[in-house]
Amino acid sequence: MAKDKKLVEAITSMDVDFAQWYTDVVKKAELCDYTSVKGCMVIKPAGYAIWENIQKELDRRFKETGVENVYMPIFIPESLLQKEKDHVEGFAPEVAWVTHGGLDPLQERLCVRPTSETLFCDFYAGDIHSYRDLPKVYNQWCSVVRWEKTTRPFLRTREFLWQEGHTAHATAEEAEERTIQMLNVYADFCEQELAIPVVRGQKTDKEKFAGAEATYTIEALMHDGKALQCGTSHNFGDGFAKAFQIQYAAKDNSLQYVHQTSWGMTTRLIGALIMVHGDDNGLVLPPRIAPTQVMIVPIQQQKEGVLDKAFELRDVLSGFRVKVDDSDKSPGWKFSESEMRGIPVRLEIGPRDIQNNEAVLVRRDTHEKITVSLDEVVAKVGELLETIQGDMLERARKHLAAHTSEATDYDTFCRTMDEKPGFVKAMWCGCQECEDKIKEDLSATSRCMPFAQESLSDRCVCCGKPAKKMVYWGRAY
Amino acid sequence: MAKDKKLVEAITSMDVDFAQWYTDVVKKAELCDYTSVKGCMVIKPAGYAIWENIQKELDRRFKETGVENVYMPIFIPESLLQKEKDHVEGFAPEVAWVTHGGLDPLQERLCVRPTSETLFCDFYAGDIHSYRDLPKVYNQWCSVVRWEKTTRPFLRTREFLWQEGHTAHATAEEAEERTIQMLNVYADFCEQELAIPVVRGQKTDKEKFAGAEATYTIEALMHDGKALQCGTSHNFGDGFAKAFQIQYAAKDNSLQYVHQTSWGMTTRLIGALIMVHGDDNGLVLPPRIAPTQVMIVPIQQQKEGVLDKAFELRDVLSGFRVKVDDSDKSPGWKFSESEMRGIPVRLEIGPRDIQNNEAVLVRRDTHEKITVSLDEVVAKVGELLETIQGDMLERARKHLAAHTSEATDYDTFCRTMDEKPGFVKAMWCGCQECEDKIKEDLSATSRCMPFAQESLSDRCVCCGKPAKKMVYWGRAY
Repeated sequence: MAKDKKLVEAITSMDVDFAQWYTDVVKKAELCDYTSVKGCMVIKPAGYAIWENIQKELDRRFKETGVENVYMPIFIPESLLQKEKDHVEGFAPEVAWVTHGGLDPLQERLCVRPTSETLFCDFYAGDIHSYRDLPKVYNQWCSVVRWEKTTRPFLRTREFLWQEGHTAHATAEEAEERTIQMLNVYADFCEQELAIPVVRGQKTDKEKFAGAEATYTIEALMHDGKALQCGTSHNFGDGFAKAFQIQYAAKDNSLQYVHQTSWGMTTRLIGALIMVHGDDNGLVLPPRIAPTQVMIVPIQQQKEGVLDKAFELRDVLSGFRVKVDDSDKSPGWKFSESEMRGIPVRLEIGPRDIQNNEAVLVRRDTHEKITVSLDEVVAKVGELLETIQGDMLERARKHLAAHTSEATDYDTFCRTMDEKPGFVKAMWCGCQECEDKIKEDLSATSRCMPFAQESLSDRCVCCGKPAKKMVYWGRAY
Repeated sequence: MAKDKKLVEAITSMDVDFAQWYTDVVKKAELCDYTSVKGCMVIKPAGYAIWENIQKELDRRFKETGVENVYMPIFIPESLLQKEKDHVEGFAPEVAWVTHGGLDPLQERLCVRPTSETLFCDFYAGDIHSYRDLPKVYNQWCSVVRWEKTTRPFLRTREFLWQEGHTAHATAEEAEERTIQMLNVYADFCEQELAIPVVRGQKTDKEKFAGAEATYTIEALMHDGKALQCGTSHNFGDGFAKAFQIQYAAKDNSLQYVHQTSWGMTTRLIGALIMVHGDDNGLVLPPRIAPTQVMIVPIQQQKEGVLDKAFELRDVLSGFRVKVDDSDKSPGWKFSESEMRGIPVRLEIGPRDIQNNEAVLVRRDTHEKITVSLDEVVAKVGELLETIQGDMLERARKHLAAHTSEATDYDTFCRTMDEKPGFVKAMWCGCQECEDKIKEDLSATSRCMPFAQESLSDRCVCCGKPAKKMVYWGRAY
């Protein structure tokens, strides 16, 4: 077993150094790698296959709500980016500028899209004429660029992959409804597919998107107690419509501005999967999103009939995503590798198993071994994958609950934030001064004003003035 | 019917002005639109849905051959682009350069990828160590940028969507095998899914890809007799491997260079669909790639039971991609619109049809009307879609054959090229001088040296010297 250990030992324990553990998992599970382009990564097959599954399932959910996919240009002319004041202030400092096309300087600089509100608005201004053209419920899958100073694989990179939905509606009510609807699609997706429970709520004005009237967010808690914003949904009201003159003729022939929304989720979700479910043996993937759900490891594969049986089982289990590891590595090495990659179930099959008409299933999440009859293997694997999916969500829910505290005075608030990793719920007066102070004192930010409001006290935890909202505070990625 | 005509009349006839007809179809079928960014287009839902179907089916075929998807950065540092001499000469004049990140000038310029050979090579140099790491059969779906001077929707735009496969192999034989394999995947895809017959062959040295040892191509013939290169597959030999030092330890422990390939198909295929199958009523989509295969148009939809029946039929036909047009437009208008968008089958259902337990199916490609019993509608629609798919391929094959001529002397060659739109097959000595002369005299290029070689004469059609190859010549997009 000495050889097997090596693969595992190469990972730093998460309790020793969580950041290093994260980097090790990313690297050893072969999810992504650094490149010669600073701040940009290559997403390797194991990582990209997760993204493909995320895309497929999210896209299915989008289309069920009437979303249509489109593709907008990669470039935004500087003058277009500048049309909405708050928006340009938010993004201009962090965009990449194209100044030359071929050998010639451009007449106007183009930025590589950091997000595409301005492009969609420019398009909608020409494409929307009448109430009959509404709503527009468009989405695109693409990459965007933000010139970040410090980067971390999946969590913060200069280029990342995402989807961005952009909608236009006749009324403010309809826009608000769509904003919340997509937030709920995101939250359900995270919980049902990624087994990541999230807190749903609204961002404070300080934390909202550049140009939005309201930003809604889903916030998840990583294993180290830090928060990760997993998706946001913005209601723009008619702000962009006024800046871009997007008007439609209503049924009464009056000219009205449209109301708009946008919403996005990114490859950062892969970072969330790693940090919510991973352990010291590597990645742990929820079955519904795992590119490979079952890895069949033949034992004594050189013995007659073993490999045949392994491939026969793969065919029997073809309703799942199954692979056979028939490489010339030792079984122990294969076990470690399959664990490192987070494959939910390992199926061991050797000469004795075959003789007994059995196989051994090993859960990635708990390491539990279950011997099953080959006659029942399809049903048992199916059940086990469902059980693992449910158990992973349940464990993550317990972790979230166990790492959500409350505070009603500032001393307790500070102590809790320092001593107990996780969210701290506390009342807030609504002033940015208190948010600024908390950030300065504790490096913590308001993650969201949850939809599920509670009244912990009637005073702001920071300044003592009358409280307006309960806020989830936390340190965040 | 006056109102219905309007939609159709807005299209220029293809016989009057093919280029304008193309632009009209693109616009009226709502496939794409121009943007504020010169040379870049927005791909609208009707266009993007075609691309999604292309992606889905191509990706499935790729994965069957062992392809794994990855994602490489959008940027290439200037020094990296320059590593392979022919490659940089081919691409540097047409790339977009990023010179500033946020407010700061970059130390080194980055180009927005025009293609990603250099990035894959840079990655492979670090990732390939031993023969055990081979082959690498990677692909990515992304957008690329080439600073074209003149642009046309789908056919030539400054940004376009594509897939680019990049592989590394232990031996030259294996690389050549993969190059041809992917060309055949492309050709089969075009014929089976897009109903577009193609000529498979090799590019001459003059026309091959910058940095390739050999470029293979599939060439299709548009309705106007011009050729369109639909996909290419390149064998790089070990040229890039030597430039990027991509070496592996062979089984005998010797250090060897890898052999590489790349291959790509783009959104240009949508242009091919338009120009191969379209007619004066608009787009005509082959059923296998059509986002909507059947449009149900209720007749007298205000009458009781008609809309109910229409939606009931949609549910009955749920094995196909079916929509009901229940808008408040007239049936005639709906017919035109469904034709404009190229929907393969229109299903008309009105009160009398319901009474007779019938529906009328109308073929988009031939306008043929077929009355079917509602009891058999699923089987009949299925058969009809298959028939249309087959007939469309057959018609395109006949067009290709009817527009492929031969010439054995230069006079005939020139006359044929000028008078008979299409390919002209002719012998060639192998010298670039003759290619240059033909281009200057006739604006025609060597499209490919087909795999299916014939000996039309033993002399070059241009210079009269001994012939080496039979070439398909043509004017091309």
